[in-house]
Amino acid sequence: MIHFYRLTLEYKGTRYLGWQVQPDDAGLTVQGELNKALRVISKSDDVKSMGAGRTDAGVHALGQVAKIAIVLKIAPENLRKALNVNLPDDIRVISCEVSDEDFFPTIHAKSKEYHYRFTCNRSFTAFQNELICNHPFELDLEKMRAACQILIGTHDFSNFYCEGTEVSHNVRDIFECEILEIPQENWMLPSHYVFRIVGNGFLKQMVRLLMGAIWNIGRGKITLEDLKQALGPNKVQRLGPVAPPEGLYMVRVNY
Amino acid sequence: MIHFYRLTLEYKGTRYLGWQVQPDDAGLTVQGELNKALRVISKSDDVKSMGAGRTDAGVHALGQVAKIAIVLKIAPENLRKALNVNLPDDIRVISCEVSDEDFFPTIHAKSKEYHYRFTCNRSFTAFQNELICNHPFELDLEKMRAACQILIGTHDFSNFYCEGTEVSHNVRDIFECEILEIPQENWMLPSHYVFRIVGNGFLKQMVRLLMGAIWNIGRGKITLEDLKQALGPNKVQRLGPVAPPEGLYMVRVNY
Repeated sequence: MIHFYRLTLEYKGTRYLGWQVQPDDAGLTVQGELNKALRVISKSDDVKSMGAGRTDAGVHALGQVAKIAIVLKIAPENLRKALNVNLPDDIRVISCEVSDEDFFPTIHAKSKEYHYRFTCNRSFTAFQNELICNHPFELDLEKMRAACQILIGTHDFSNFYCEGTEVSHNVRDIFECEILEIPQENWMLPSHYVFRIVGNGFLKQMVRLLMGAIWNIGRGKITLEDLKQALGPNKVQRLGPVAPPEGLYMVRVNY
Repeated sequence: MIHFYRLTLEYKGTRYLGWQVQPDDAGLTVQGELNKALRVISKSDDVKSMGAGRTDAGVHALGQVAKIAIVLKIAPENLRKALNVNLPDDIRVISCEVSDEDFFPTIHAKSKEYHYRFTCNRSFTAFQNELICNHPFELDLEKMRAACQILIGTHDFSNFYCEGTEVSHNVRDIFECEILEIPQENWMLPSHYVFRIVGNGFLKQMVRLLMGAIWNIGRGKITLEDLKQALGPNKVQRLGPVAPPEGLYMVRVNY
């Protein structure tokens, strides 16, 4: 008999090709490691897992949600502990509960929250490597905050996704969007910025493309008007780089 | 003409074989990377560097001190910036000043401070990997703190150094020794403990061997009396493991 559980996971994405198991098992993935641990714990190859979102290679998560299906009936807290013993140190299960069979982590998500962490000078710390991106340019925070305001609302993000990953439509609702300043708290983390965005869904590489465009607004390479023009179905020239994966965190999925 | 500068460096030791350049250039070292950057900046192969202490493979530094000798006369702040452009991201120069020719970072050090960071349960975070060691056992903090008190003073540490690294004598003064509790501050760092030790010098692997012994005191595997017995020239059985390098930080050198 199949039993369903709902997990909240935290992981450092650096070593992984991303969340999703690769078709040809091409390399390490978070889901692959999770499935491996589930096979050990349930003593069966009959394991299934489904995440709320497919984080890309190098992208981190503080609150990925996954539904799993295994042949083992076990107290959720014991499953959580057993998983943490069997998973690599850079993947942790934060919480575990019994799930309804008809819960779908993707479809039922009301909103998702992503953070992109970055510094913008050369005074970064030796320890932020892989965790906070350094974008070594002077940035106009005022303009970047104005850009965040423009993104709030319902827009067609056809100019902000990775080509070759077509989905049924490219319209998404952005509920919250802002740039936070995080002061230096300790020896490890420098003072840095967080580009925080909450929406009902995100296209592949959308947050990183938005971050790249906002950086270019901060540098004065493009204008707020350019951003407004790009928020629609008509293809325009790309507004900025794809921000590197190490700054991005999938923070929360709200149901 | 040779010019002398004094640097304070921060580095994440994970990728390096340690501070010291290997005789046969066997792999990446912090000093090797520093020398490489100095050769580029001074446009000369005539560069020398000397650190206050030889951190081992995987050990970090928040305040390593180095004296360098190069053929270039340059404003210290400009040298600091040029080094940070030319060094890898996981090595940063915190400060730079002109140095006396007769300053020796090793000999003139009055004291050094090391921190060993550890968690002792399975609730560590996915992000502490390489930065805070997990020692997954229940520990009696009271006893470990009593052990710290025993270590304060002048002792022969013949039982607490890596064999094959004989020096003239093994007596060292420990000025301060304690265990601090660090609360969880943010998404990355879990609440954890810091074994903090300040002394006039440390033998190779001494801090990590002391940490291993203190862990075993916390686990009840050895007694405070065993520790007292081991603080002398007479060889005793090793009291504990060499704590893994990733928890150790060279924090400060006082002159």
